Amino acid sequence: MIDKIEFFAALKERSQRVMGIIHQERFLNNYPLEVLRKALFSYLSRPAKHLRPGILYFSCGALGGTEAKADYAAAAVEVFHNWTLVHDDLIDNDTKRRGLPTVHEEYRKEAVRAGYSSAEAVDFGRSIAILTGDLQQAFVVSLLLETAQCGVAMPVVMELLRNLTIAANELLRGEALDIIYSKRKITELTEAEIMEMLELKTGVLYEYAAVSGAAIGLNQEGQDDEKVRALGRFARRCGISFQLQDDLLGITGDEKVLGKPVGSDIREGKRTVIVSKAYEASSRAQRYLLDRVLGNPQAGENELLEAKGILIEKGLDYTKKLAENIVDQAIAELSKLPKSIYKEYLLAWAEYVIKRDF
Amino acid sequence: MIDKIEFFAALKERSQRVMGIIHQERFLNNYPLEVLRKALFSYLSRPAKHLRPGILYFSCGALGGTEAKADYAAAAVEVFHNWTLVHDDLIDNDTKRRGLPTVHEEYRKEAVRAGYSSAEAVDFGRSIAILTGDLQQAFVVSLLLETAQCGVAMPVVMELLRNLTIAANELLRGEALDIIYSKRKITELTEAEIMEMLELKTGVLYEYAAVSGAAIGLNQEGQDDEKVRALGRFARRCGISFQLQDDLLGITGDEKVLGKPVGSDIREGKRTVIVSKAYEASSRAQRYLLDRVLGNPQAGENELLEAKGILIEKGLDYTKKLAENIVDQAIAELSKLPKSIYKEYLLAWAEYVIKRDF
Repeated sequence: MIDKIEFFAALKERSQRVMGIIHQERFLNNYPLEVLRKALFSYLSRPAKHLRPGILYFSCGALGGTEAKADYAAAAVEVFHNWTLVHDDLIDNDTKRRGLPTVHEEYRKEAVRAGYSSAEAVDFGRSIAILTGDLQQAFVVSLLLETAQCGVAMPVVMELLRNLTIAANELLRGEALDIIYSKRKITELTEAEIMEMLELKTGVLYEYAAVSGAAIGLNQEGQDDEKVRALGRFARRCGISFQLQDDLLGITGDEKVLGKPVGSDIREGKRTVIVSKAYEASSRAQRYLLDRVLGNPQAGENELLEAKGILIEKGLDYTKKLAENIVDQAIAELSKLPKSIYKEYLLAWAEYVIKRDF
Repeated sequence: MIDKIEFFAALKERSQRVMGIIHQERFLNNYPLEVLRKALFSYLSRPAKHLRPGILYFSCGALGGTEAKADYAAAAVEVFHNWTLVHDDLIDNDTKRRGLPTVHEEYRKEAVRAGYSSAEAVDFGRSIAILTGDLQQAFVVSLLLETAQCGVAMPVVMELLRNLTIAANELLRGEALDIIYSKRKITELTEAEIMEMLELKTGVLYEYAAVSGAAIGLNQEGQDDEKVRALGRFARRCGISFQLQDDLLGITGDEKVLGKPVGSDIREGKRTVIVSKAYEASSRAQRYLLDRVLGNPQAGENELLEAKGILIEKGLDYTKKLAENIVDQAIAELSKLPKSIYKEYLLAWAEYVIKRDF
């Protein structure tokens, strides 16, 4: 059994590899306008775990493929993720990503320094973020086309592109649901609705990473292959549990380890399973308190602690169990895969997903 | 020689064809969330000339191809255009497109009707427009992949996708230049800079349409084929002249024919060749007036008329001549193409580009 340290060492190796692919001179040269080039590579230059390309490489290896064949697809899945982050940060009006300013915030500040009025600067930052995400989406297509040069068979290249469009449709639908749900009262949202949103926003891209790597590993179209599909379901499920755990850590986590204020999910009124379940199981008095605190940026420290207590008491165990069950289902998907170091990496990831504290 | 009426009849036939392709049930079904589906097909359901798919079909025919093979690529180029419109309208904070609300404005209004606060409604409209453009960009890829089902050879399909990423990079760079230039004084902009922006924002997508259609017509990769490249240069040049003419009409045009207030380009301070040239050729007193009126939404009616007079006196002939020269160069590119009805359509388009009054 691979432990966490070995898993992260393996992941780091792939992360460095994929960053090397993305930052090639010839790609940088595709963006002669400095502001766009800098914005495009902004998040990509910040330290990150790069789990998605890792899962893609491991899925390729798990089906007997050479990892080098998966290089450009692994790069593509990370740029895909990046594009959605840039646009999502703009949609959410977030100002920080990986400890540094988000793209729209970075260029808003730059415009302020250049003497733009404050409204003009906001517009400028927004505009650059929109164009940056658009460029990144086109970059994903370029990277996938490159896989043909690494010996990936043409039908597989076509499938990678076809699946890209399906994954994009689902992920963007997840974002739209997130926006719509954020305006509905938590009591009007069912757990099924929240789970669908998590699946679309997070599960889909992990599934895409896994089926892409798996099809490259087989070097044939994966859509009708049971092992490829099983790897896809595995990754989709782990992605969902990853997000459930994320939401748990947003309430119970250690501020210093996480690097973000723990009350922020509560103050923002984030629609999560833990909140939905806790609300459902709460008394009238508790609901009254939750109504006052959830999504209220002005909530006081005491109220916040009280709300946190209710969420933990009424929602924690249920959500933890749910995440564990989904990971168990995920792990069962791998039962028919042959033994390999790659399978071990994937299993280590599944363990990490629910045991992590950051 | 084909006249304007015949040209537009031919264009209309292609327009209906391409709208039929795009609005197929199976594509509509890719967007189960109603708000996204409606937003995605919003501009696509409004009457428009659909010049880009027309040029793609005609270029295909001009090199001996069957038009049916170009159906999905023609649809792709229109959706490509649409994606850039949706995001561009958001960047420019425009509220009207083809006589109806822009996507972000449409969903802002819908949110207001649903009881959102006015700031929340603006955010909602913006978010939907961002996601809509992203979905449309993915839709372009889907449509290009479909060309493989219409008998387009695989290397051509790959080239269409590769060229898509190049065209996207250039077009988005043009948009970024537009944003950056709009903050610079017109006197600090050279004609070469303005022309580069026009070429990237408008010429590139027409070139993409032409080389895509041409390669499909040949049914082989077009990048090294002299006829394909000549068609590309032809369309790129016509696209530039089209935009020059557009800028002229923005100043001299008939409000009723154009359907937009004629002073608006002046009031918005749009960076055009006519303005740049007129400023260069103006006296000190005229420059003083232009400085006061250009980009000043509050400019009075008399000042506006005076500025318009200067622009016409000092910039009109030059810009008209420039547009004509570029169209002449464009037409010369077609000299080696065999005689055909498609070549006639392309020539009729080149004529129309500078003779049109709407």
